[in-house]
Amino acid sequence: MLLKKNIPIGYVFGKVKVELVIILLYSLAIAVIHEWFLEVPISIPLAVPAVLGTVISLLLGFRSNQAYDRWWEARQVWGAIVNDSRTLARQVLNFTGSQYEEDDVHIWRQRMIRRQIAWCYALGQSLRRLNPTIGLEKYLSRKEMEYLTRFNNVPMAMLDQHGKDLRRALEEGYINRYQQMEIDKTLTRLCDAMGKCERIKNTVFPSTYSLYIHFSLLLFIAMLPFGVIDYFGFLEVPLVVAISASFLLIEKMAIHLQDPFENKPTDTPMTAIAGTIEKDLKQLMHDQDLPEDKRQEKYYYIM
Amino acid sequence: MLLKKNIPIGYVFGKVKVELVIILLYSLAIAVIHEWFLEVPISIPLAVPAVLGTVISLLLGFRSNQAYDRWWEARQVWGAIVNDSRTLARQVLNFTGSQYEEDDVHIWRQRMIRRQIAWCYALGQSLRRLNPTIGLEKYLSRKEMEYLTRFNNVPMAMLDQHGKDLRRALEEGYINRYQQMEIDKTLTRLCDAMGKCERIKNTVFPSTYSLYIHFSLLLFIAMLPFGVIDYFGFLEVPLVVAISASFLLIEKMAIHLQDPFENKPTDTPMTAIAGTIEKDLKQLMHDQDLPEDKRQEKYYYIM
Amino acid sequence: MLLKKNIPIGYVFGKVKVELVIILLYSLAIAVIHEWFLEVPISIPLAVPAVLGTVISLLLGFRSNQAYDRWWEARQVWGAIVNDSRTLARQVLNFTGSQYEEDDVHIWRQRMIRRQIAWCYALGQSLRRLNPTIGLEKYLSRKEMEYLTRFNNVPMAMLDQHGKDLRRALEEGYINRYQQMEIDKTLTRLCDAMGKCERIKNTVFPSTYSLYIHFSLLLFIAMLPFGVIDYFGFLEVPLVVAISASFLLIEKMAIHLQDPFENKPTDTPMTAIAGTIEKDLKQLMHDQDLPEDKRQEKYYYIM
Amino acid sequence: MLLKKNIPIGYVFGKVKVELVIILLYSLAIAVIHEWFLEVPISIPLAVPAVLGTVISLLLGFRSNQAYDRWWEARQVWGAIVNDSRTLARQVLNFTGSQYEEDDVHIWRQRMIRRQIAWCYALGQSLRRLNPTIGLEKYLSRKEMEYLTRFNNVPMAMLDQHGKDLRRALEEGYINRYQQMEIDKTLTRLCDAMGKCERIKNTVFPSTYSLYIHFSLLLFIAMLPFGVIDYFGFLEVPLVVAISASFLLIEKMAIHLQDPFENKPTDTPMTAIAGTIEKDLKQLMHDQDLPEDKRQEKYYYIM
Amino acid sequence: MLLKKNIPIGYVFGKVKVELVIILLYSLAIAVIHEWFLEVPISIPLAVPAVLGTVISLLLGFRSNQAYDRWWEARQVWGAIVNDSRTLARQVLNFTGSQYEEDDVHIWRQRMIRRQIAWCYALGQSLRRLNPTIGLEKYLSRKEMEYLTRFNNVPMAMLDQHGKDLRRALEEGYINRYQQMEIDKTLTRLCDAMGKCERIKNTVFPSTYSLYIHFSLLLFIAMLPFGVIDYFGFLEVPLVVAISASFLLIEKMAIHLQDPFENKPTDTPMTAIAGTIEKDLKQLMHDQDLPEDKRQEKYYYIM
Repeated sequence: MLLKKNIPIGYVFGKVKVELVIILLYSLAIAVIHEWFLEVPISIPLAVPAVLGTVISLLLGFRSNQAYDRWWEARQVWGAIVNDSRTLARQVLNFTGSQYEEDDVHIWRQRMIRRQIAWCYALGQSLRRLNPTIGLEKYLSRKEMEYLTRFNNVPMAMLDQHGKDLRRALEEGYINRYQQMEIDKTLTRLCDAMGKCERIKNTVFPSTYSLYIHFSLLLFIAMLPFGVIDYFGFLEVPLVVAISASFLLIEKMAIHLQDPFENKPTDTPMTAIAGTIEKDLKQLMHDQDLPEDKRQEKYYYIM
Repeated sequence: MLLKKNIPIGYVFGKVKVELVIILLYSLAIAVIHEWFLEVPISIPLAVPAVLGTVISLLLGFRSNQAYDRWWEARQVWGAIVNDSRTLARQVLNFTGSQYEEDDVHIWRQRMIRRQIAWCYALGQSLRRLNPTIGLEKYLSRKEMEYLTRFNNVPMAMLDQHGKDLRRALEEGYINRYQQMEIDKTLTRLCDAMGKCERIKNTVFPSTYSLYIHFSLLLFIAMLPFGVIDYFGFLEVPLVVAISASFLLIEKMAIHLQDPFENKPTDTPMTAIAGTIEKDLKQLMHDQDLPEDKRQEKYYYIM
Repeated sequence: MLLKKNIPIGYVFGKVKVELVIILLYSLAIAVIHEWFLEVPISIPLAVPAVLGTVISLLLGFRSNQAYDRWWEARQVWGAIVNDSRTLARQVLNFTGSQYEEDDVHIWRQRMIRRQIAWCYALGQSLRRLNPTIGLEKYLSRKEMEYLTRFNNVPMAMLDQHGKDLRRALEEGYINRYQQMEIDKTLTRLCDAMGKCERIKNTVFPSTYSLYIHFSLLLFIAMLPFGVIDYFGFLEVPLVVAISASFLLIEKMAIHLQDPFENKPTDTPMTAIAGTIEKDLKQLMHDQDLPEDKRQEKYYYIM
Repeated sequence: MLLKKNIPIGYVFGKVKVELVIILLYSLAIAVIHEWFLEVPISIPLAVPAVLGTVISLLLGFRSNQAYDRWWEARQVWGAIVNDSRTLARQVLNFTGSQYEEDDVHIWRQRMIRRQIAWCYALGQSLRRLNPTIGLEKYLSRKEMEYLTRFNNVPMAMLDQHGKDLRRALEEGYINRYQQMEIDKTLTRLCDAMGKCERIKNTVFPSTYSLYIHFSLLLFIAMLPFGVIDYFGFLEVPLVVAISASFLLIEKMAIHLQDPFENKPTDTPMTAIAGTIEKDLKQLMHDQDLPEDKRQEKYYYIM
Repeated sequence: MLLKKNIPIGYVFGKVKVELVIILLYSLAIAVIHEWFLEVPISIPLAVPAVLGTVISLLLGFRSNQAYDRWWEARQVWGAIVNDSRTLARQVLNFTGSQYEEDDVHIWRQRMIRRQIAWCYALGQSLRRLNPTIGLEKYLSRKEMEYLTRFNNVPMAMLDQHGKDLRRALEEGYINRYQQMEIDKTLTRLCDAMGKCERIKNTVFPSTYSLYIHFSLLLFIAMLPFGVIDYFGFLEVPLVVAISASFLLIEKMAIHLQDPFENKPTDTPMTAIAGTIEKDLKQLMHDQDLPEDKRQEKYYYIM
């Protein structure tokens, strides 16, 4: 699905550009004062920032772990959506008896599978707070499009439409009662996946933790030049900037990872995944109209 | 569901206000004595509090992890309640055959879905030790309200009512035997979610761990001024207060996170989640009477 | 279920009383020798015990995590028992058709639910290595009591009785074939919960790990006075005792948490949980004979 | 199931005997050279091995965690085997209608349950790379024994025999179609448990990790005497041996824990667990021929 | 399945060969300059690299954990594929009634099981970005081979063929409706396993984390010689190389573990596992044509 693409170095450091310039000026000022102007010693033992460094390392470790878990769970949920979309297509295509190869069943199958493709796009767009129905006219009938606009939660309404179509299929005799239950279980799993995405989207990481870590980090960086000025002199400046960059980048990384649906370049590649689902499901339907590779994903770096 | 709201700085530091004032006076007294009165050295090597600092960091890391896990599990359970409420509504609406569009089935569907909405509110209120039936008269009949007051555990009784209604639906022929089993599985998952909330609510974090960590922390803070007084002089006071604030805040944070149903501003936003469920389920029923945004949640900061 | 109760300070420190007295005498002896008798220096650099301290902190962290996981899993399993007991009652009450409101079905329901209550008490007692059948005569017939005494594993035999009663219900036509399967799934989950409790009970934590950690801790404590005697003099004694108490308590805590069914005051509150189940299930049966709060639990502190 | 037995101290230290003697001689040589022969200083600052000590602690923590997880998963899988064996017995005994109490059904039940007992022993023996069919003649017919010898994977073939017997039971009308599916699910879970054991058995821990940790540990031990010789003189020898023993033991412990099916004294007690299953299942069948306590397990210390 | 094989030492160090030569030259240059040419002191306190060392240790621990989890999850998924392949074979062989022992059913069974064997090989090959259909002509008909080449995702198409064959079996009366649903659940699990492999394959580890850790490591190594040159002189060179090798190897190890399907010697042994599945399934079919041990796996070291 995803290819490894290089991340431009500018992009990486761009996130902490402002902070690094300030730290550069700050540590330079200290070095100038220490070397040229001041007589009284201003250095402190390195052990003082080192104690803070240990605490901050542990807290950044904790934070990185939780952020990574959120990001990885988001990726797992979208992996499960791939699996269950394929399962739904397999069930819809193969549960309906081969004797019903006439038009009605064929239309029903097409409608179910196209709606499933649309559901994946709609879920991705609604998680990014975009209009979920944009671009779905390729997969849904005009009537269904109109019906869906009445709902706040469009993907949920589409699962309900799936359920209504299952009932129709049972009443028409396309599927039997056990098959209805089995496909309904697949819908339940899709409903769970949708809810898990919403949970990750809507639950912010405890922000007091973030605040505390950020303040501790600033305290640590402010003390660092005093701890190393005696040994390094002007070489202190690049050293402090380099160490600060490390800590700030790891903090920023955690901040970005923890919100995997925020419409940022480092997002979960939902449109690409939905494109893969579309390609797979259309091939199962023997539909030749495969989607070209999605262009709108190209600005999304893969993290 | 939830929006990021700013946490007032006063709220954050308010929790450790008293402790910080005491630490301020304590470290100030030591600085005054050291600088103005005393001749004999009272400083100790920084390595002594540093050893304690490492141990405490590890223990706070352990504690933060467990507290976060409890909080995140609480959030996951409520996410599962959202999913299973939607699944229940989808099953109730779509299992009942479309030929039964007459009034009886319609009333049955309405009763099931309204009770499910009420169940979410009731569970949230009973986890906060409030009267679980307050405000449920909008969703339940007077007779059912009266019946429920006989029970200690109101949400459990409501699931039992769901079960009774399922039996009635089977006997009336609204649903078939497989569908009864499938909806019953959804009830089982809701019952599990309820029990998980009760487990988190009722199991206190091993309090001897908390005690030990708190005492170690006090010992560490008491030794800190002696470790840095030689290098910092009066600057020791803000340094000690800042480091103490970090450690105390991280401890307080863990204490709040570990009890996510305690009716505090940093609570799991159960009423807001139940409101979302109400909106979704009513739209599925084509009920126009959507709830306005819940006002009582506005004092709950999102953590 | 559980209320936060204060843990008497004597109870907490009582567990490490003997060790602390020995450490007190040991560090006092070293201080006396150092201050009054000896000329040659006996202090060692603090870095030596500090290295050991880091290793021990990491190992205690590992141990605390595993012990906490065992304890929390035990609590989760009993939470699942609560859920599945309620589910069993809901299924037993609501699967049996309302047209069978005559006595036979009523007796069958009562027997199933009362046996489930008894099963919870029996499991708790057998995990504590008490006679599992004590006090069950309130819930079971005399004949069933006699039958059960033939088994080594009484709770397993009771699940088998549940299974036999399900067969009877199917043969009598109280429940249909799907319902038998669905209730059997609930029995399977109860069987799993029972087996998980037995696994936690019967699998000791790798004892060589415990041994190693304990010996390292003693080595660390033995070296500690020599590391701090130079800076603290007689103040070394309370410092060493306080730090040793911290480490010993955290070790003891892990030892207690890791065996959650050992009939100790810090046990998993199985009798209280079984009492909650009894109350809930009896209310579902409209049985007025609710249990009074269990008195025998009062000596069990909640950890 | 398992009782806590003391681990002879000789057994514990026997594993690192050779290493400790070498370290003893090595550190003794350094002490002799330093004290009696050499004039030039050979000590190095303790901070150098201390840095390595921190890295090694973290890596040993990582390794202990993964090894413990493998060991605990092995134990969980065998706990699940206990649960599913009991579930299989309950289903086999109680699904077959009570009206079929004639001989055929009885023989069928006996065959299923005895084969399940045999399966547990066979799985344990094949995981220990012993002949899996040894001792199974007590539970299986001669014909079935012969049939099984044709298979590389005997436990898999026994599950297939279970499946064939289920088909026979359906064709004879002992069980209905739903019951066949439900028992088949139990077989699926047993098949999963078997595969999980094979996975743990056949996947070696990434050996380059082990190599790296071992080499780092040797480097650390080699540098340790130089770091402490200045402060301790000849007392350095027991100190170095004690610290080395701690690190080596924790490494050895992880190596043993990570392979829980290697026919070593610290093995997962599979034969004892199979004995428990045999006793439980025979009591459910009202079979008086209970197994005596397994003697061959007595050399297996419980870790 | 897998045997422990020795990893040639050259292979282990070969991965970091270039880096180590550069570090050797670098540290040698510093030693030469310090010992022979320079008068001014160039050493820095060891505490400066030590602070970085702690941070890097924690980050490498985090990275090793996540990489190990990916690798272990990959192994678990392939373990589940083993289990579900056996389950599918057991169901296909034993659900079809024994009265249908005529040719048609036999051919259907053979086709299903041979396709399942082929599916395992195809999945392994497509995860390694090889042509998935190579070598499958032994298991599949020519017609099916041709059909499969039309699909981008061959294993998905094979599961769809499984589904079509199930429908045919239902229509022919080989299996009943419940059995179709039960085998379909096994297909769903296989579909999930396939999707999980694709997720691990296609999701790169957040590359900014990797970059950050790598840069911090280089900074640490660059500072290390200056930290120890005063104590060791020329002995500094092997020490720096040894410590650098440790850190670089642990980083490389994580990089290899995190991508378990990259066609490298340290890969997940997918072909060997598929060979095991082939052997097991053919024995269940009483097919004598067992595969010889796969030769192409011999260059794959087991990690």
